[in-house]
Amino acid sequence: MEKEPIFDIAHLAHIEIYSPKLEETVTFFKDILGMDEAERQGKSVYMRAYEDHYHNTLVITENHEAGLGHFSLRTTSPQALERRVAEIEKMGYGIGWIEGDIGHGPAYQFNSPDGHKMEIFWEVDYFQAPEEQKTALLNRPQRRPNRGVPVRRLDHINLLAKETNENVEFLEEALGFKVRERILDDDDKDIAAWLSVTNLAHDIAIMGDALGEEARLHHICYWYGYPQHLTDVAELLVEAGHEIEVAPIKHGISQAQCMYVYEPGGNRVELFGDSGYLIFDPDWKTVEWKGEDAAQAILWHGGSNLPADFFEYGTPVRVKEPVKNS
Amino acid sequence: MEKEPIFDIAHLAHIEIYSPKLEETVTFFKDILGMDEAERQGKSVYMRAYEDHYHNTLVITENHEAGLGHFSLRTTSPQALERRVAEIEKMGYGIGWIEGDIGHGPAYQFNSPDGHKMEIFWEVDYFQAPEEQKTALLNRPQRRPNRGVPVRRLDHINLLAKETNENVEFLEEALGFKVRERILDDDDKDIAAWLSVTNLAHDIAIMGDALGEEARLHHICYWYGYPQHLTDVAELLVEAGHEIEVAPIKHGISQAQCMYVYEPGGNRVELFGDSGYLIFDPDWKTVEWKGEDAAQAILWHGGSNLPADFFEYGTPVRVKEPVKNS
Amino acid sequence: MEKEPIFDIAHLAHIEIYSPKLEETVTFFKDILGMDEAERQGKSVYMRAYEDHYHNTLVITENHEAGLGHFSLRTTSPQALERRVAEIEKMGYGIGWIEGDIGHGPAYQFNSPDGHKMEIFWEVDYFQAPEEQKTALLNRPQRRPNRGVPVRRLDHINLLAKETNENVEFLEEALGFKVRERILDDDDKDIAAWLSVTNLAHDIAIMGDALGEEARLHHICYWYGYPQHLTDVAELLVEAGHEIEVAPIKHGISQAQCMYVYEPGGNRVELFGDSGYLIFDPDWKTVEWKGEDAAQAILWHGGSNLPADFFEYGTPVRVKEPVKNS
Amino acid sequence: MEKEPIFDIAHLAHIEIYSPKLEETVTFFKDILGMDEAERQGKSVYMRAYEDHYHNTLVITENHEAGLGHFSLRTTSPQALERRVAEIEKMGYGIGWIEGDIGHGPAYQFNSPDGHKMEIFWEVDYFQAPEEQKTALLNRPQRRPNRGVPVRRLDHINLLAKETNENVEFLEEALGFKVRERILDDDDKDIAAWLSVTNLAHDIAIMGDALGEEARLHHICYWYGYPQHLTDVAELLVEAGHEIEVAPIKHGISQAQCMYVYEPGGNRVELFGDSGYLIFDPDWKTVEWKGEDAAQAILWHGGSNLPADFFEYGTPVRVKEPVKNS
Repeated sequence: MEKEPIFDIAHLAHIEIYSPKLEETVTFFKDILGMDEAERQGKSVYMRAYEDHYHNTLVITENHEAGLGHFSLRTTSPQALERRVAEIEKMGYGIGWIEGDIGHGPAYQFNSPDGHKMEIFWEVDYFQAPEEQKTALLNRPQRRPNRGVPVRRLDHINLLAKETNENVEFLEEALGFKVRERILDDDDKDIAAWLSVTNLAHDIAIMGDALGEEARLHHICYWYGYPQHLTDVAELLVEAGHEIEVAPIKHGISQAQCMYVYEPGGNRVELFGDSGYLIFDPDWKTVEWKGEDAAQAILWHGGSNLPADFFEYGTPVRVKEPVKNS
Repeated sequence: MEKEPIFDIAHLAHIEIYSPKLEETVTFFKDILGMDEAERQGKSVYMRAYEDHYHNTLVITENHEAGLGHFSLRTTSPQALERRVAEIEKMGYGIGWIEGDIGHGPAYQFNSPDGHKMEIFWEVDYFQAPEEQKTALLNRPQRRPNRGVPVRRLDHINLLAKETNENVEFLEEALGFKVRERILDDDDKDIAAWLSVTNLAHDIAIMGDALGEEARLHHICYWYGYPQHLTDVAELLVEAGHEIEVAPIKHGISQAQCMYVYEPGGNRVELFGDSGYLIFDPDWKTVEWKGEDAAQAILWHGGSNLPADFFEYGTPVRVKEPVKNS
Repeated sequence: MEKEPIFDIAHLAHIEIYSPKLEETVTFFKDILGMDEAERQGKSVYMRAYEDHYHNTLVITENHEAGLGHFSLRTTSPQALERRVAEIEKMGYGIGWIEGDIGHGPAYQFNSPDGHKMEIFWEVDYFQAPEEQKTALLNRPQRRPNRGVPVRRLDHINLLAKETNENVEFLEEALGFKVRERILDDDDKDIAAWLSVTNLAHDIAIMGDALGEEARLHHICYWYGYPQHLTDVAELLVEAGHEIEVAPIKHGISQAQCMYVYEPGGNRVELFGDSGYLIFDPDWKTVEWKGEDAAQAILWHGGSNLPADFFEYGTPVRVKEPVKNS
Repeated sequence: MEKEPIFDIAHLAHIEIYSPKLEETVTFFKDILGMDEAERQGKSVYMRAYEDHYHNTLVITENHEAGLGHFSLRTTSPQALERRVAEIEKMGYGIGWIEGDIGHGPAYQFNSPDGHKMEIFWEVDYFQAPEEQKTALLNRPQRRPNRGVPVRRLDHINLLAKETNENVEFLEEALGFKVRERILDDDDKDIAAWLSVTNLAHDIAIMGDALGEEARLHHICYWYGYPQHLTDVAELLVEAGHEIEVAPIKHGISQAQCMYVYEPGGNRVELFGDSGYLIFDPDWKTVEWKGEDAAQAILWHGGSNLPADFFEYGTPVRVKEPVKNS
């Protein structure tokens, strides 16, 4: 009989991004995406979407350049937290415990093989709506904001990595992630992989860094659930002068209708505008896209390819080395 | 430290319903809901939706009256299956093992306290698309059908029970279901409860039977994911003369946009036309609706109440006793 | 050869409503429906939706009770204005010329047979967007507002009348309106009629007043064009405590997906959330709904009937006389 | 006082296209777009969408190459027909009267300055639904088909012309079309123009032919009204192997969400998936896009440009002359 699956990680809990333009970045998430500022401390602003149940899901920290601060996973129990810490320490990727941060208790920090800073924790603070934001919809933590086209909740993170396979295996072995879909090259090495511990098609994606850099961020993603909201928010974005990198499309991978935009600090933000598809099969066989199929994995309904930047731009921003004549 | 949660049940795998009008029921699911007939054996027809990955998710069996045959859950591993069987046997609700059925291997059958027949299993057959149904969308088991307004996958089952609480507790203790939302009466007893093992707000719901009957079915539900499809299928249903019990509405519970229709055999079918909301929090605190709030739990956007039948009609059909003058 | 149709009226240009709670009414249209205040004068506030091209389409005037101030039609040319004035004067319904109002030039005022105050005019002021509202979408007069769920434009007006037929005939003969759909009683008299001069299924509707009152308003209607926006605005309305009279439904008449809500001043407002159907046929044969068909004219997808108030409540509010025993 | 506008043309009534693959073209419109075959005669098949009220709106005629047969406009009255014929004859573009065709009575045929064959008529045959297609929705000529993702009605035609301005002026002067939007080059000559006699932003568009050819067809367009249907039909198209030229986008011009696909005979078909915006202003000032703005006229939400073929491919297919070195 096979080994049983690991059920120790519950979901992606929050992400910290760096921005060289703190206030502009905060205003973007607030006025266009309808998110709320939960707290400020030092150079960091803590934010959440209106259906995020925790105190915060996005931390924006002022920094000389854009990029990923860290991201955080919540375990399924205190015992699960202990088990995962033991495993990560054994594998040699651990950094160590912190006492906690605004919105959560003690957390164990570690690096992905590529160097992305991660943490896991159990104790969390829930958002408590002030009186004027309380709603009769008891499964929603607060009223729908009356500002922008408000995103509903944090969805996933997409990382660039120098060595894709190594990082994918780390997530599988250390944390129990399952590879839901992957794009393979001719040697069957991962060009990109989509992994989850939930019923979503991905909580984390890892894509090979075309510039060969380490530990960069491709994008963070917030969720709408409805295609119309992509059209709606695109109106606000275009008219306010923000740069839409990819107007609403449909990916084959994850069956997502979505779009990509740069927040003013330079990080790429995906907006996920539909239900996608969910994976309930406990024995899911990874979907593998190779060769010609890969184009439809990216643009299922066809049309022009994505812009070159989509495959090269990440944060922190690095420049592609010009090809030298020898 | 608290006991860890149970992760042994993966999801709702299939449902068997009874129909006194087998062919008409099959035609309804085929022509209006775009489902495919997978196989026939004896008095049963096995069907599936186009994004169902298994061989079948709906069994329609000819019977003198409508109602629930049984429903089936898949475990997360073979070991999980053994653990759950041991627990159910200990609790005294077991019926026993069957060798399997079309589409799955050995299954352990048992009754809910109310008498709903259930089963759990591990081994399953996957749908293999014939050449002409193969799709380039590799995470989808077949092409989108060109018939009706095709549902995408099985979503949940809603049961009527004489004693709500007893059945809810059975699902929690024997199978590890978590109560996501509940409607309580003034004595804090469950009027109805919504439970899941997945990130959905419910895989199974249990509502008190207003007629005091046992083991009846309130409805089965298939999923669209998009609100537009409710409008579309409503056109087909109305013009073909089917009876829509509840035209598209939005529930507070589960935040579902959905509608209810009777299939020709008499069973109620819910069509779920949006993403709803997903639950990722491993420590989710059950949402409790009481007193005045309960109305918004049912009709979040207000308007007329649901018809009386919604609270009394189930299958098999039983008639409400007239109130006697004494 | 038949007489040629009249092409003298172009469309519904603006509506004046009365409100006993001026500021609350203005705030409703501003914060929930995303409309802008264009100007204030005396007891009146002039507003418009973001795709309304004229200076204003809604005038809200403070008054001791809710109701219709007047509504206004623009002609297709200055010559057309003269022709219509001559015709109305001949028919004896004229009031006389006014010099103009904020947003338009000289207008000829008159009464419908029931006493609804109307006017027609040619000269109009266009909205000029201030710099910060200018948009690159040159066919849109300003940016999409970042507030509420913004309606796009004025759609139609629905009047209650003591004598339906008389008022319908007046609109046909004096102004060239065409009856697109009607509900008839057993004697083939109009219970209600939907009329237009545009390709819309109605610019004006007239329904028999169940209380036998004269010249009341049933509702005004603003347009979204997309069904999702009904769900979105319903969230804002419910959570802000506004009373939704009819949650999103689909009418058979005009094929409208729409909803009805009371603004704080007491007037009923319809929100039209889809494209409806357009009429291009120059020889359109009025669609007639009678007897049993009438129910589907109102609720095409079935379900509970509309609340009794929908058929009795109008503004100014009048109370139904209790049935007397004689 | 200015001259009054002409109200003699009611709308676009039908289009004849040529196909070298008659049966494949018919199957495309039938199985994917849900249209019905109304009649066959000689080498022509007459079809309609389910909300088209006339006998047919599309004639597909077998021919050695794809292209436009002719297109047809209905007048607003018999008198209007006479007036327009007189005007066209005076201008010297007339061909002459035909007795009629399947679905309509006597028609006057003529050429656009570029040579596109057109006709105008008054008498028309209405579609009479057979018993099994009759619907309780009395403003709809038949039930919604249960096949494909059915288009609702004919929307517009888009022509390529050697001399844009000349053809635009002909439509204005001979037929009373109004130019709603235009793209201008640096010398203020039309690159393209969108014209209508209805409240639509265009019934006819004319674009300069990049190959310098005469009287070609850019595309015909059928209408859905809802954005979701673009996603739905894209699934059917991709999975059935049809070539989507432009996956769902949003034009700035006409505010259309739409997509473009080649039918098997080679003609480009646009599918219009939303309400667009309507023009009610009788004194509409043509929207003019120049220079940098033109890009947003085409792709309002930004992203990659349309493929080069969109600007060069028309039917009949002609090949671009290679640039010669002299």
